[in-house]
Amino acid sequence: MNYLKLSENQLKEILKIERQKYEGYKAKNLKLDMSRGKPCREQLDLSSPMLGILDEASDLKTENGFDTRNYALVDGIPEIKKLYAEILNVKENLVIAGGSSSLSLMYDTVQRGMQFGFAGSTAWGKLDRVRFICPAPGYDRHFAITQLFGIEMITVALKDDGPDMDAVEKLCADDESVKGIWCVPKFGNPTGVIYSDITVKRLASMKAAKDFRIFWDNAYSIHALKDNTRELLDILPECERVGNTDRAFIFTSTSKVTFAGAGVSFFASSENNIKEAKAVISIQTIGPDKINQLRHARFLKDKANTLAHMKNHAAIIKPKFDAVISILKKDLDGCGIAAWTNPDGGYFISVDVLNGTAKRVVALAKDAGVVLTPAGATYPYGKDPNDGNIRFAPTLPPLGELITASEIFVNCIKIAAAEKLTATVS
Amino acid sequence: MNYLKLSENQLKEILKIERQKYEGYKAKNLKLDMSRGKPCREQLDLSSPMLGILDEASDLKTENGFDTRNYALVDGIPEIKKLYAEILNVKENLVIAGGSSSLSLMYDTVQRGMQFGFAGSTAWGKLDRVRFICPAPGYDRHFAITQLFGIEMITVALKDDGPDMDAVEKLCADDESVKGIWCVPKFGNPTGVIYSDITVKRLASMKAAKDFRIFWDNAYSIHALKDNTRELLDILPECERVGNTDRAFIFTSTSKVTFAGAGVSFFASSENNIKEAKAVISIQTIGPDKINQLRHARFLKDKANTLAHMKNHAAIIKPKFDAVISILKKDLDGCGIAAWTNPDGGYFISVDVLNGTAKRVVALAKDAGVVLTPAGATYPYGKDPNDGNIRFAPTLPPLGELITASEIFVNCIKIAAAEKLTATVS
Repeated sequence: MNYLKLSENQLKEILKIERQKYEGYKAKNLKLDMSRGKPCREQLDLSSPMLGILDEASDLKTENGFDTRNYALVDGIPEIKKLYAEILNVKENLVIAGGSSSLSLMYDTVQRGMQFGFAGSTAWGKLDRVRFICPAPGYDRHFAITQLFGIEMITVALKDDGPDMDAVEKLCADDESVKGIWCVPKFGNPTGVIYSDITVKRLASMKAAKDFRIFWDNAYSIHALKDNTRELLDILPECERVGNTDRAFIFTSTSKVTFAGAGVSFFASSENNIKEAKAVISIQTIGPDKINQLRHARFLKDKANTLAHMKNHAAIIKPKFDAVISILKKDLDGCGIAAWTNPDGGYFISVDVLNGTAKRVVALAKDAGVVLTPAGATYPYGKDPNDGNIRFAPTLPPLGELITASEIFVNCIKIAAAEKLTATVS
Repeated sequence: MNYLKLSENQLKEILKIERQKYEGYKAKNLKLDMSRGKPCREQLDLSSPMLGILDEASDLKTENGFDTRNYALVDGIPEIKKLYAEILNVKENLVIAGGSSSLSLMYDTVQRGMQFGFAGSTAWGKLDRVRFICPAPGYDRHFAITQLFGIEMITVALKDDGPDMDAVEKLCADDESVKGIWCVPKFGNPTGVIYSDITVKRLASMKAAKDFRIFWDNAYSIHALKDNTRELLDILPECERVGNTDRAFIFTSTSKVTFAGAGVSFFASSENNIKEAKAVISIQTIGPDKINQLRHARFLKDKANTLAHMKNHAAIIKPKFDAVISILKKDLDGCGIAAWTNPDGGYFISVDVLNGTAKRVVALAKDAGVVLTPAGATYPYGKDPNDGNIRFAPTLPPLGELITASEIFVNCIKIAAAEKLTATVS
């Protein structure tokens, strides 16, 4: 039943039925939150044995003999650097292990660009204009950082294989003021996209300002929901191969491996960039929390063990993704008013509703007790030009609640679409 | 035996004897590090029970019901905010509990001043000139931050009751470009100074630029070595009383309460300042490591218990301070070539040697296997105009090593002084 082909009367009938359903949902006084990509209790429990992994009787020394309880090692302890060097497939000396927030590392890196500039180029803050390319739909917290620093954001479409590279290449070739691009290259927030090899190669090799930097937020690098998902091409060697050695900054953390907000963050880049970053970080802090890094190293052990741990995460959250997608499919397939992703990994389902109805859907859902990510959040400045994209975060709620929330979501999508279409025809 | 009153021959005799001693020390091939204020193993052991305080079976919820393993609470968990509100004697809603490094909070605060400005004033980075007052001798890591941001540092003498307030008042009254002052107001690094009530009142009430800020690094607020030490007047109420409500930023951490570099940091200020800081911090991070905050709250419990814990620290390190001071006294009293502090708290002994000999003393000590803080480190730009101040950090080494290092230190002070005085008379 394609809504776009229905008569006004048929649409009005649908509207009546869906509104009745909606009143039923409202009467339940629900309070469900699908707004953020948070792990659920069962996922957090997977890592709780880590809490007791160190105690008073433990050997608290790093493998190179430093007491983790005292000052030292501004770039982190060797054992955790080694583990994430292996996971990110970079050399250990090119990794900095930080505190609990990779978002802070990104903020700090933008801040260093603004205040000091990179590799001898003029500090961005001294330029008349600084622009960042923001593939969208994307991650609202990235956009918030660039907006805070007064960096102009240029939206570029995010396609199935990554950003629209024709547009990206043209922007970078023509304009020296384009200094960065935000990328979530694997299981990207919110569509689940994995950048194709060609996209990675084009990003690495395209013409751009000398101090143009790729902010490679590889937050979900090992967060597969299915087996045998596609590999992401490594960005650093691609940059190095074509002589753009210092182009990429890699970020990741264990927030969705162990504990959200209480894990370990990582920064990886070229030798020059790491040296330059370390010079500032050594003034900013005496060092990260090495005890928490040791806890992580002892718990996660090695890459194989970490990947096995991630399979346990997938076993918990995959049924949630499946439940949402099966409801969307059952109720919306063929209606012509919604499309959604079925991601191989990551934390989100990206739903495109009828243009001009996303805000209405989110408002309707809110009044029925379901908090969704604000419409527009996936676009720079919170403004989705089509008012069409909604990010749905299925991981946090228990399955029962998630099913109810998804049914309400579908109900709201239908109401908003029927409202819009009857308004159009009338 | 006052060196300044000795004849050249007497001095040459001393030089000969002290140089013989020195060769004896050198032959021992020692490797002793007195350069940084690090807690020793026994101090760290005091907090090691905290490591096992949370495990898989623990209640991991905050008192307001948040799972510390998940995202939330950008300004920290209520129980740790409450504890430090009590310790800092400020309202709980004026405290932000952060990650493991208060130095990072200071860096971030200077960065916000440079990038965004405070309370609607022009961003410091947009001004032609930004100046900070740096009472000296002071903390080298403070000076490193201001230097990194290109802020001009003006040295003001640190006296027994705090900075030379006549000089500070004159600088601030005459010059709108003076935007800040670094203060370690209690058991200050390195002299152990406690600011007098008058100093605090004058800092709070003096004429200064609207966006002038006091960077109040109260790192050692509860780090007394002796009983009944003098109380520090609270800065926030003094500022508020005279209408300079937003003038002070307070920083502290548990680095020298629990674990160095793996504790909890705190920022406290006025309502406006906290609101303004939180607006940026909410973009910089989703939140601090709340599990480590919970660990600290459960371990430290309340102010009384925390103060009792600090007494245990004092019991370990006071004998070290006493040993150093007794050696300095025995060997240098009346020589006229050195003066030293006998602090009531904190981590350092500040030693003033004969002007023009501090670098030589540090170099001599280094060649004899004793690493001291570089001469000049306690002054802006690493330049002590008198080449006379040396910071001595007695906490880290075991008592035996500390005694040896102190004897070598005294030996080097004598050699450098005799060298200088014979050079002068010849």
